[in-house]
Amino acid sequence: MNHSERMKCEALKDRITTAEAAATLIRSGMTLGTSGFTPTGYPKAVPAALAARFQKEKGCCINLYTGASVGKGLDGALAEAGAINRRMPYQTNTTVRKKLNQRDIRYSDIHLSHFAQEVRYGFYGKVDVALVEALEITEEGHIVPTTSVGASPVFISQAETVIVEINTRKPLSLKGMHDIYQPQDPPHRQPIPLVNPEDRIGTTAIPCDPTKIKAIVFTDLDDDPISFTPADEDSQQIARHLISFFQQEVMAGRLPEQLLPLQSGVGSVANAVLKGMSDSPFKNLVFYSEVIQDNVLDLLDNGTFRFASGTSFTLSPDGFDRLYANMEKYRNQIMLRPMEISNNPEIIRRIGSIAMNTAIEADIFGNVNSTHIMGRRMMNGIGGSGDFARAGYLSIFATPSMAKGGAISAIVPMVSHVDHTEHDVKVIVTEQGLADLRGLSPWERAESVIENCAHPDYRPALRDYLAAGMKEPGHTAQLMHEALSWHQRFEETGTMKP
Amino acid sequence: MNHSERMKCEALKDRITTAEAAATLIRSGMTLGTSGFTPTGYPKAVPAALAARFQKEKGCCINLYTGASVGKGLDGALAEAGAINRRMPYQTNTTVRKKLNQRDIRYSDIHLSHFAQEVRYGFYGKVDVALVEALEITEEGHIVPTTSVGASPVFISQAETVIVEINTRKPLSLKGMHDIYQPQDPPHRQPIPLVNPEDRIGTTAIPCDPTKIKAIVFTDLDDDPISFTPADEDSQQIARHLISFFQQEVMAGRLPEQLLPLQSGVGSVANAVLKGMSDSPFKNLVFYSEVIQDNVLDLLDNGTFRFASGTSFTLSPDGFDRLYANMEKYRNQIMLRPMEISNNPEIIRRIGSIAMNTAIEADIFGNVNSTHIMGRRMMNGIGGSGDFARAGYLSIFATPSMAKGGAISAIVPMVSHVDHTEHDVKVIVTEQGLADLRGLSPWERAESVIENCAHPDYRPALRDYLAAGMKEPGHTAQLMHEALSWHQRFEETGTMKP
Repeated sequence: MNHSERMKCEALKDRITTAEAAATLIRSGMTLGTSGFTPTGYPKAVPAALAARFQKEKGCCINLYTGASVGKGLDGALAEAGAINRRMPYQTNTTVRKKLNQRDIRYSDIHLSHFAQEVRYGFYGKVDVALVEALEITEEGHIVPTTSVGASPVFISQAETVIVEINTRKPLSLKGMHDIYQPQDPPHRQPIPLVNPEDRIGTTAIPCDPTKIKAIVFTDLDDDPISFTPADEDSQQIARHLISFFQQEVMAGRLPEQLLPLQSGVGSVANAVLKGMSDSPFKNLVFYSEVIQDNVLDLLDNGTFRFASGTSFTLSPDGFDRLYANMEKYRNQIMLRPMEISNNPEIIRRIGSIAMNTAIEADIFGNVNSTHIMGRRMMNGIGGSGDFARAGYLSIFATPSMAKGGAISAIVPMVSHVDHTEHDVKVIVTEQGLADLRGLSPWERAESVIENCAHPDYRPALRDYLAAGMKEPGHTAQLMHEALSWHQRFEETGTMKP
Repeated sequence: MNHSERMKCEALKDRITTAEAAATLIRSGMTLGTSGFTPTGYPKAVPAALAARFQKEKGCCINLYTGASVGKGLDGALAEAGAINRRMPYQTNTTVRKKLNQRDIRYSDIHLSHFAQEVRYGFYGKVDVALVEALEITEEGHIVPTTSVGASPVFISQAETVIVEINTRKPLSLKGMHDIYQPQDPPHRQPIPLVNPEDRIGTTAIPCDPTKIKAIVFTDLDDDPISFTPADEDSQQIARHLISFFQQEVMAGRLPEQLLPLQSGVGSVANAVLKGMSDSPFKNLVFYSEVIQDNVLDLLDNGTFRFASGTSFTLSPDGFDRLYANMEKYRNQIMLRPMEISNNPEIIRRIGSIAMNTAIEADIFGNVNSTHIMGRRMMNGIGGSGDFARAGYLSIFATPSMAKGGAISAIVPMVSHVDHTEHDVKVIVTEQGLADLRGLSPWERAESVIENCAHPDYRPALRDYLAAGMKEPGHTAQLMHEALSWHQRFEETGTMKP
């Protein structure tokens, strides 16, 4: 292999080594910060070597910090080796989820935009080693990321030791699609100069002191393949309600005709909503979000979107083929940014994002649970939903009205865990309909959520709960002895139905 | 009275009228937006006339929007006349509180920084009439606010009709202490150019199209007198814990020696903390907050603070005397801004505020209730606490560990209403001690809160709850059938103690 095409820094030539040798730089007790945001752009070869070593050397443990979720060869393999002590700030891996719900892994579930700066503030201790996947190392020793940026700029700036995995499977044509900007810290921070979602404000490579780069490993390993489930009828119905709502808001003069920059969470509902935009009258929209999914390429191709900004390409293998085959077109339409910028509340509030995220459950008073099943079991984490919902122009939460074949109502008297408070939730939408909660009192919110969003099977019980609560004085109509009884019933009987 | 000293706009001379005549511009069904943030700087003469009229004409109702709380002659008198339909975004009045807890008033409890821009976005309908207290009307017809700014710029820009109460009791020397800036709306918003808390970015008067000013009323009515309770031993102990924490953070390199701009809520705990700063080694600090209380003048006088920015002077009568007697000194040290700027998350995140707010209760997992007693009865509202806690460098919540002589533990298994989620609460402090929750898993947070913050009388029961929860799998250790049992017990027996 001709290394010089992708490793251009003369001074670092002797740092090229094997994954096993590089992995020896990571020792038990250390904190490791890696690239990766969704299962793409994360390091693969060194984690495999590290997990293999930790499988043999029992009792080893590291803290693993990432951008968000990563591939199973990274946090999954280390979790299987019993080698993760602390995990931040987000995850979706089956083994990690199991272990943190057994309390074997100490997990901190942190707003993604907070995490990036707070690592720099020193709130989570020292990052010993940054381990990042790269397209290339530049002449200056700077690092060009691959298919995600995530928290790599922070880890690289903070760690004493940097290990780079150059992935030759990823085409050099990706170079130039990244925009790397890292804010200064208070009291020296300046306004972030991003005013329009299309603005380029930084560099194409992540600045790095080359003397910190202690190992460079060449790999050609693929990301975990990502697949998307096709949109079901419920999700398509949610999309229709939302598009109709946007049309009404434009008519009322509360949204411009090209709307405002859209943000969308990950998952089948979010996917259906994006897909639904293709069939809407809206054109020439801007997407300012976390992840660029296959649907975003569709929307760019058919003119619904004119530009998309994110922090990762979360594409299926077909999606990547399509991206790579049309790089010259997409190069002007897509930009990848650090998650501290993609999720930055300063920017989100300035540009006026329309934040669309999914809920596990919502309560009739407008609080949303997006993390804990039945108030106890962590699903994934809050991710960037709070960054966008809190700072956005509109915050929308979507969920099918029922789960588990009707045994669970996603609309409950009180959510079993609060991630987004009534102060931060403007719209709730299910396949049944949409509740616009702006400016309503608690009991008006409750009536709207019950009548518009709850499944008809659960409406009578929710009406009964509200009526009983309204007999007692108070601002909300919560009944402490019944508020969580639906969850309790599900745990005891397997259904929320009485 | 010589009107021309304070009403300098020739074209508006014929608009000077009586309070009763001005009040006829406000009709049943309208939305009224007034000045006032805490009981200062709110209109007095026209509301008195309006309340008197509405007392006679039964069945009248308006929506009342303000900056935050106002004096009892405004929302209190209108509530007593049964004339408030909707009330936003915050209140502290006894009658309003009673009526919204009887659900006679529809109350929306909204982040103050959100409310200001969302009125402009049209989310809460049209503001028909803006009614504001002023020091003077300038030659151009612009309006110089008095002792608070609040949401007046938004109401004045949005309303078709503006009524001005010129209060001659307030000295003209206040002119020049205000800095009025109103951001543009997305997609045209630019970065807010405030980089240092001392920066002046706007005008000294609120711009107003003079043709909208339909009535001008001269008054000399006083604000409601504000009094402060002296700091009790618990509050002083909280202050000592916090100062010690700040010192440790400076030692660890996580805070600069002059800290970062402090924000402090209102109330006796917040007051004690500010007072406690006088006895600390910290000097030359900056205060970027909502309200300038008497203690802030003390801190400016003794060099603890070098500058204070807020949106209102919430001073006792003695405090006002002191302010007015030393205007030339304070003029360079204090600035009043619109609440959209004082509470702006873009600025708060940029300057890195240390957010200190009070909790009604906190749970062992780090969630905070700052609004609803026993999950039902509204106390005041979230106010600006969420603006600062969510966007600040550090978010701290303080509360005495017990209330009602020990019948209520402020540290509970699950808060009965969530205003600040576990994702947004970094530090909880009571007179018992301080829990630093950064980077901890849920059960580590629970141990820290129980052992550091809970009152010893309640620690055994909290430890039992946690131990029982830890026997079940899950990430948190909440037990759905017991989580709210402490509140239920209090409602039934008058104490949380078993």
